[in-house]
Amino acid sequence: MEADYEVIIVGCGPAGLAAGLYAARSGLKVLLLGNEAAGGYMRGIEKVENYPGFPDGVSGAKLGLEMMKQAMKYGLQFKLAKVEEIELKNDYKIIKATLIKAGETEEVSYVTKTVIMAGGAHPKKLGVPGENEFAGKGVSYCGVCDAPQFTERVVAVAGGGDAGLTEALYLTRLASEIIIIELMPQLTASKILQDRVFANPKIKTCCGTRVEAITGDDQVRELDLFDVSTSEKTKLPVGGVLVRIGLEPNTSYLEGLLPLDSEGYVLVNEELATSIPGIFAAGDIRHGSARQIATAVGDGVTAALSADRLINLKY
Amino acid sequence: MEADYEVIIVGCGPAGLAAGLYAARSGLKVLLLGNEAAGGYMRGIEKVENYPGFPDGVSGAKLGLEMMKQAMKYGLQFKLAKVEEIELKNDYKIIKATLIKAGETEEVSYVTKTVIMAGGAHPKKLGVPGENEFAGKGVSYCGVCDAPQFTERVVAVAGGGDAGLTEALYLTRLASEIIIIELMPQLTASKILQDRVFANPKIKTCCGTRVEAITGDDQVRELDLFDVSTSEKTKLPVGGVLVRIGLEPNTSYLEGLLPLDSEGYVLVNEELATSIPGIFAAGDIRHGSARQIATAVGDGVTAALSADRLINLKY
Repeated sequence: MEADYEVIIVGCGPAGLAAGLYAARSGLKVLLLGNEAAGGYMRGIEKVENYPGFPDGVSGAKLGLEMMKQAMKYGLQFKLAKVEEIELKNDYKIIKATLIKAGETEEVSYVTKTVIMAGGAHPKKLGVPGENEFAGKGVSYCGVCDAPQFTERVVAVAGGGDAGLTEALYLTRLASEIIIIELMPQLTASKILQDRVFANPKIKTCCGTRVEAITGDDQVRELDLFDVSTSEKTKLPVGGVLVRIGLEPNTSYLEGLLPLDSEGYVLVNEELATSIPGIFAAGDIRHGSARQIATAVGDGVTAALSADRLINLKY
Repeated sequence: MEADYEVIIVGCGPAGLAAGLYAARSGLKVLLLGNEAAGGYMRGIEKVENYPGFPDGVSGAKLGLEMMKQAMKYGLQFKLAKVEEIELKNDYKIIKATLIKAGETEEVSYVTKTVIMAGGAHPKKLGVPGENEFAGKGVSYCGVCDAPQFTERVVAVAGGGDAGLTEALYLTRLASEIIIIELMPQLTASKILQDRVFANPKIKTCCGTRVEAITGDDQVRELDLFDVSTSEKTKLPVGGVLVRIGLEPNTSYLEGLLPLDSEGYVLVNEELATSIPGIFAAGDIRHGSARQIATAVGDGVTAALSADRLINLKY
């Protein structure tokens, strides 16, 4: 069997791009398959303040492009594609994917010695009535992406962690009022974000509260809320709701192939190897990641070095 | 017992600076103790090409300063100091250190809830006769730091890994000729660096060879070499030797306090916690690190988030 590539990386967020940079610099023949533009979920972050090296912050979209440019300089190839399936054959892996080109698609399959899974995670849904119905009509999972539709509206942000508060602060520029709704008795975000939220007159917080339904007509009009401690039910008139209650790994197509934890994250060892020789996982997709840009980047580097060692030993 | 700090970070390389950024952004009272300027060993790297986000490369010294600036913006405090000892007292740690101020020193001790060990590693010595005698007289462990003394000289670089080849390439601008000496039968550096070395007419390589002694008069004049496969002994006339044969962790003062591996690296779990609650380790100092700037940065972030979680749970 002849391999088309020595490494195929699935995912073009910070983990995939860092892995691509290192694999390319090691002189490996490496292809990166991503189903969106460089940066992955990072593209939706208006200003990244916590990636070390950028004291004035940097837009997530720009950081993604810079990382891609750097990796391509050393020979990384990139194709816009959705990976559908991974098949094992002897010591090789066959990646089946749908290439996306200017409105057309093409089914392809590539043979590779190693794979680095860096497909990240996507925002969890609330799972309440009305959520799917009003998607794109006031229900959003990315404030920066969908900001214009919130202009001069009262917007609820479901989720009191770092992601929710970051989005809430961002929305203060457009929305007329923001209400952060958190199920736990208090916000869980880092203190610096909480301080900024409490100092902002446009933001209110509402903890110990569950969203039970989203209602409206041609767009979102109201949320049904439930107070966890008093069991009181109320209705909150809103013009939109942004859901940031956590992440779910993009691993549904890997069930049965790779060992996953109970939430679907890929299980790995210290070298980021899965139990299948030649398959590695890096970034938000793996169990135990701190889910930050900096940790995803570190993971990408570790996985690429591990893949390189395996290729030198085995092929 | 009253803590002076919630987190004390030991070491001002990329791991320590990333930990400082995250701990400060979390609103923790955090002090960074470093025995050199921001960046640690990174300061000696002329051009960092493999830290994701800088497609044109960035000097290690500049990257260190940018990371420090970013962390201080959120409240990180920094003191130039050498940490001498860590004592445990109930749930607190007492850090004994020597502060370094404009030529004077002062013994201090700080009480802290948690400690992040990010003291990195230093270059290993060859351990051969003449090495200590000629230190600073042609024997060097940092090409960028000591470059001028190699001008127009024949220089041996001991070590055929990434660090050795990077230094050899850097020295081509000043030295008249460079001979890379590697004990293994071939170079172990990444392919891109090997390609550059083989393409450079100023550099020769000499693999399967051991340096047995360094001799000279007021400065280095010759190396005694031993060919591992033929057992032949030869003498190589040189004007200097740069030693880059690997790293040793800066953990000698931690023996008996923390569990270390056989090479002295700190043992940690997935959250980068040591077996002593409240002591974490990040970057090159810990067992299993890939020892890259990007992985050190990822570690610093992970350790700071782990420390933050522990503080919220326990204190």
